[in-house]
Amino acid sequence: MPSEEEFLKTLSQIFAPVGSPLSKSLKVGIGDDAAVVAPGNAPLALSTDMAVEGTHFNREWSSLYEIGGKVTAANLADIFAMGGTPQYLLVAAAIPEDFTNEALKELAQGIQDEARRVDAIVVGGDLTRSKILTIAISTFGEVSRPILRSGACEGDVVAISDLPGESSRGLKLLQEGIRDERTKAHRYPSIKYGKVINLEQGLVHSLTDVSDGLIAELESLGSASGVCIEIESSKIPTDAHTLHGGEDHVFVGTFTKLPSGWIEIGRVVNGAGVRLDGSAITHQGFTHF
Amino acid sequence: MPSEEEFLKTLSQIFAPVGSPLSKSLKVGIGDDAAVVAPGNAPLALSTDMAVEGTHFNREWSSLYEIGGKVTAANLADIFAMGGTPQYLLVAAAIPEDFTNEALKELAQGIQDEARRVDAIVVGGDLTRSKILTIAISTFGEVSRPILRSGACEGDVVAISDLPGESSRGLKLLQEGIRDERTKAHRYPSIKYGKVINLEQGLVHSLTDVSDGLIAELESLGSASGVCIEIESSKIPTDAHTLHGGEDHVFVGTFTKLPSGWIEIGRVVNGAGVRLDGSAITHQGFTHF
Repeated sequence: MPSEEEFLKTLSQIFAPVGSPLSKSLKVGIGDDAAVVAPGNAPLALSTDMAVEGTHFNREWSSLYEIGGKVTAANLADIFAMGGTPQYLLVAAAIPEDFTNEALKELAQGIQDEARRVDAIVVGGDLTRSKILTIAISTFGEVSRPILRSGACEGDVVAISDLPGESSRGLKLLQEGIRDERTKAHRYPSIKYGKVINLEQGLVHSLTDVSDGLIAELESLGSASGVCIEIESSKIPTDAHTLHGGEDHVFVGTFTKLPSGWIEIGRVVNGAGVRLDGSAITHQGFTHF
Repeated sequence: MPSEEEFLKTLSQIFAPVGSPLSKSLKVGIGDDAAVVAPGNAPLALSTDMAVEGTHFNREWSSLYEIGGKVTAANLADIFAMGGTPQYLLVAAAIPEDFTNEALKELAQGIQDEARRVDAIVVGGDLTRSKILTIAISTFGEVSRPILRSGACEGDVVAISDLPGESSRGLKLLQEGIRDERTKAHRYPSIKYGKVINLEQGLVHSLTDVSDGLIAELESLGSASGVCIEIESSKIPTDAHTLHGGEDHVFVGTFTKLPSGWIEIGRVVNGAGVRLDGSAITHQGFTHF
C-alpha cells in the first residue's frame, strides 16, 4: 500500500492548476489546511455530490476513470443548472486498503479531465480509508443571475437540451451482462455543457438537470413554480427510460421561446403536477435514495 | 425507512439559517440544484473533511450528535488554521438503510450546533445510501490574510492554543472499555476557536491545527518553512499522547511574540526537522491513512 505522501504527490501532480484561466485566482492550493481562492465579486453557487460504490457505481462495470468523471459531471451539472459557472472543486475520497497508486491516479484523472472540460480546477481535498469506495465532490463557482426551479411561468416553452434515457438504457444492458459501447452513457454520461453555457440571455425562466428522471424533475419544477407542466407524446418518446431514467444530466427548463439547439417538449400551463397528452403522470423510477 | 422527502424536511428545519448574521447573504438555500451565497470581496478559504464509520468514529462509543459535531469541528478548525472565518457549509452524508429520521436529526443537530458556535451556516448538501455511515463536510469562508504553514521564521516563538493529547487519551480508555466523561475529548473535542479568532494582528507567522499529532504538525510547519522547530520538555509534557496524539485540533503556530492565552513550547531555529531538548524527534502515531 502506497504511503499518504505518495498518494498526495500523485494528486498534486494530476490536479496541478496549470493551463486553466483560473490558475491566477488560486492563492493557496493543495497542501495547507485549506485552499484559498480569489473569485470575482459575483454571488457564488455551491453544490456537493457523494457517490458510493454499490449505490451509484460498480467497479466491475465502470473504470475508475469513468467513476471519477461521472461524479464530477453530476456536480458540475448542478452548478450549470443554477445558471452558474463551476470554478473550484474540493474532492474528498475514502479508498479501500487495496487501492494502488495507479488506481488513485486513474480516479483523479477522470475527475481532472471532466473538470477541465469547463476550465474548473481542483483546489483541495481529503483522502481517507473506507471498505467502500466513496467520493464526495463540492464545487463552487460564480453565478451572476441564479436560475431557479421556481421561475417557470404560464405560457413558457418547456425544453430539454438532449433526450434523456441513455443512462437508464445502459444500466439495463449492464444488468443483463452486456458490456459494449451502448452502456457508455451509464458508465460516464457525456454532458453537453455548451447547451447551457450558450443559452441566449433572458430566454430562460427555470432550469434544472435530469438527475432522478425527466418526470421527477418536471414535477419538482412545477411544484416549485406553482404551475402545471404539460408535455406531448408527439414531441418526445414516452418509454420508461426517456421519461423516468435518471443520471443523464441533460438540462430541462422553461423559456420565453425555444433556445436554439434545444428540443421543445411542451408548455407551462395553469394548474399543478405534470401531464402527458392531458393525463397526469408521476415519477416511476429508481432513485439513489 | 423514512422517505427522502421526510429526511429533507428534517434537514431543512434543522439547518434553517435563522439567527445567523450570514442569513442575509444566503440567496438560495437547501432545495434547488445548488446554494447561492453572496460573500464579501475577500479571498475565500475552502476545505473538506470526510469521516467514515470504523475509520474515524464508532457508533458504539459516540452518539450521532457527537459524530456530527466532531467532523464539523475538524473542518472549521482547518479554515481557522488558515486565518479564515468559516461561513458556509455543504454537508454530504451516506446513511445506512436502517437510519431513522430521529438518527438523521441527531447527526444534523450535531453539525448545526457546532457550526453555530462560530455563526457558520449549512447551505446545502447531498443525502445518499451506504452500508457504512460516511459524512463529508466542505466549508468556505473569507480569509483576508491567509496564514500559511510556510511562514515560520527563525527566532519565532512556537506556541499552542491548548495542550493536545486528550483525544488520544480518551481513545485509549474507550478501547479499554471505559465509557466515562474522560473519553469526551475523543468523542467530541471542544475546540477553543476564540484562541485563533482573538489572535492579535501581526503576531502570527505560521499556523495549523493538530489533526495528526503535535510532532507531525510541527514537522509539516518546519518542512514547509525550511526551518527547524525546537521544543523543550520543561514547557510541555512529553508523553506519547501529548506529542503524537491526533484529533484534538488545538492550534499550533509560530509568532513574533507569545499571544496572550497561548502556551509557549519552543523556538524556530536554523536547520530542519523537529528537535526535543536538542534531539531529533519524529511523528510516531496513528493516522487515518
